[in-house]
Amino acid sequence: MVNIMGFDVGGVNIKGAFITHSSKTDFDIKICSKYHPMWLHNPEEFPKLLQEMITELAGDHLIELCGITLTAEVSDAYFTKKEGVTHILTTFSKIFPQIPKKIISIYNKFLSITEALEDYMAVASANWVATALFVGRKFPKCLLLDIGSTTTDIIPIADGIPDTIGKTDMDRLLNGELIYTGALRSTIPSIAHKVPIRGKICPISFEKFALIADVHLLLNHITADEYSCDTADGRQKTNQDALARLARIICADIELISESELYEIANYLYERQLDQIAEGLRQVLTSREDYDLTVPIVVTGLGRDFLAKKIAKKIGFQQIFDLQEKLGIKGAVASPAVAIALLLAEEYEAT
Amino acid sequence: MVNIMGFDVGGVNIKGAFITHSSKTDFDIKICSKYHPMWLHNPEEFPKLLQEMITELAGDHLIELCGITLTAEVSDAYFTKKEGVTHILTTFSKIFPQIPKKIISIYNKFLSITEALEDYMAVASANWVATALFVGRKFPKCLLLDIGSTTTDIIPIADGIPDTIGKTDMDRLLNGELIYTGALRSTIPSIAHKVPIRGKICPISFEKFALIADVHLLLNHITADEYSCDTADGRQKTNQDALARLARIICADIELISESELYEIANYLYERQLDQIAEGLRQVLTSREDYDLTVPIVVTGLGRDFLAKKIAKKIGFQQIFDLQEKLGIKGAVASPAVAIALLLAEEYEAT
Repeated sequence: MVNIMGFDVGGVNIKGAFITHSSKTDFDIKICSKYHPMWLHNPEEFPKLLQEMITELAGDHLIELCGITLTAEVSDAYFTKKEGVTHILTTFSKIFPQIPKKIISIYNKFLSITEALEDYMAVASANWVATALFVGRKFPKCLLLDIGSTTTDIIPIADGIPDTIGKTDMDRLLNGELIYTGALRSTIPSIAHKVPIRGKICPISFEKFALIADVHLLLNHITADEYSCDTADGRQKTNQDALARLARIICADIELISESELYEIANYLYERQLDQIAEGLRQVLTSREDYDLTVPIVVTGLGRDFLAKKIAKKIGFQQIFDLQEKLGIKGAVASPAVAIALLLAEEYEAT
Repeated sequence: MVNIMGFDVGGVNIKGAFITHSSKTDFDIKICSKYHPMWLHNPEEFPKLLQEMITELAGDHLIELCGITLTAEVSDAYFTKKEGVTHILTTFSKIFPQIPKKIISIYNKFLSITEALEDYMAVASANWVATALFVGRKFPKCLLLDIGSTTTDIIPIADGIPDTIGKTDMDRLLNGELIYTGALRSTIPSIAHKVPIRGKICPISFEKFALIADVHLLLNHITADEYSCDTADGRQKTNQDALARLARIICADIELISESELYEIANYLYERQLDQIAEGLRQVLTSREDYDLTVPIVVTGLGRDFLAKKIAKKIGFQQIFDLQEKLGIKGAVASPAVAIALLLAEEYEAT
């Protein structure tokens, strides 16, 4: 038996998992997620938050191993990725001075802190590798479509390991393997520059008046609880407030345009977001001969149902698997924090 | 002689002008502008800020009249426009209980506070009317192209008064008469969803990593002083920091892509912003028979040179006038705060 902590340090959410692992089929998982936009917080608050998460998850249990994935180095809390990786990893060194710490890399291998600091680009934004390796255990050949709150990963998996053309975020963006759109935080101008109103097409404001979370709340895709980021105007996660936010994107308010007109706008934005993700998926499919519509597509993340499954069906995939249903593990199973902890556990058991 | 205060209450900048007016050709102007994003401040701070501006501009001078234009009611500091107009105007009532207060309306007329509260949609976001009426004194038939920090107004003027098809912000957006793009605050995804890098086209992040102000700073269109809004990351208004911000839009940093690659991205975004404004201008031109390329186009605002003039030339206007040069009054002449004060002065002299 081994007790393992897994962390996925994002720029917006920090996720933690604590796993008590007896065997591949016998383990306990506790998870938590903290909303912590890095660029709004003093870097000093980061170690404190990690400590709180450790206490919340592990309590008095002895922790024997710690796995880490990160993407927060891309946030503008850091001037360069190097600065970000260094700050995040040295923080973990101070918090866990004694136990082994393993960071996932784009080479599908774990690195020590020393190795990761040396080759920081190998661990920068490599959290998708953890998820892909984990999914690859069950689906050795598939396309993984992971739609989270902020981004979408499209990851071809072959022989159980990720087989993307791009490895860095920029190269993954270029190859359609990373799409910077997600179920909650996407801004409206990143989805569309114009929306329909009264039979016309209206250009919109660039102000952060609303988020795609408002659209998905209005369309009953997410609950107020699942709306786990700040609202654009600091008001409530209610339909009424979401409608008011959406009205502002064309410089109107809820006294000037009707609820049904706002639902028309919400539906339009939803369609455009589906298009945006479908375009990336088509790019991945057409750029390689070894993946086609007969390959299983595995969907996960908060947007797995109303975005991922919908797109996979539209494009015509023949085998669509919901990772959560398939594995029978609760919601966050695809979270890199859980994935890295389980991967480490298996590696530990194998030695 | 009359002493007049003019205010333009924007959601981001509050501008004030104090005019000591002896005659149409003999007057003194003092102006100031305060960066005050309404949605980040407690509403209680607004009257305090106005008092400070009055002291700074008028000192011990007696104020006899106050002109007001507003757009801040569209900001999400207020739930509806009605709430915004009411809060802003009642604040002025408290600050100037004794003197006449005049608010410009979309009917090209001044309203009293009582009238404006009654017909709040007539004064909501009507600041462009003040500028247009003022410009119409000198150019009775023209197209006014006013590109500020945040928005672009395209206003056909006929017989000295604004002749737009739209009157509200939403209707002006629909008719190409208001474009929500400007010289400083535009977010990158509101300009383009993809940028060129290394011979490819890269989809971008939606995070507020950079602003169009970074592009215009890098291209020497504006000085660090003219970069009068907050930077996206809270860092400096230097070329080095602007380059770092721009690199983040494709999830890179300045160690991963070169300065010349970043200048290529900046130039691309500049071109797209020119296209965006030109599209609105063409829409206005093609939707009416009474304006063509022989009509004078009057450019003003911070973007008058590197955006407005450039677009006017490209489209083929034969007479392009820079309002500041033409009138020989300093920079902010086209600011609705100055315009409304001068309009009120003339009206006062005429009575």
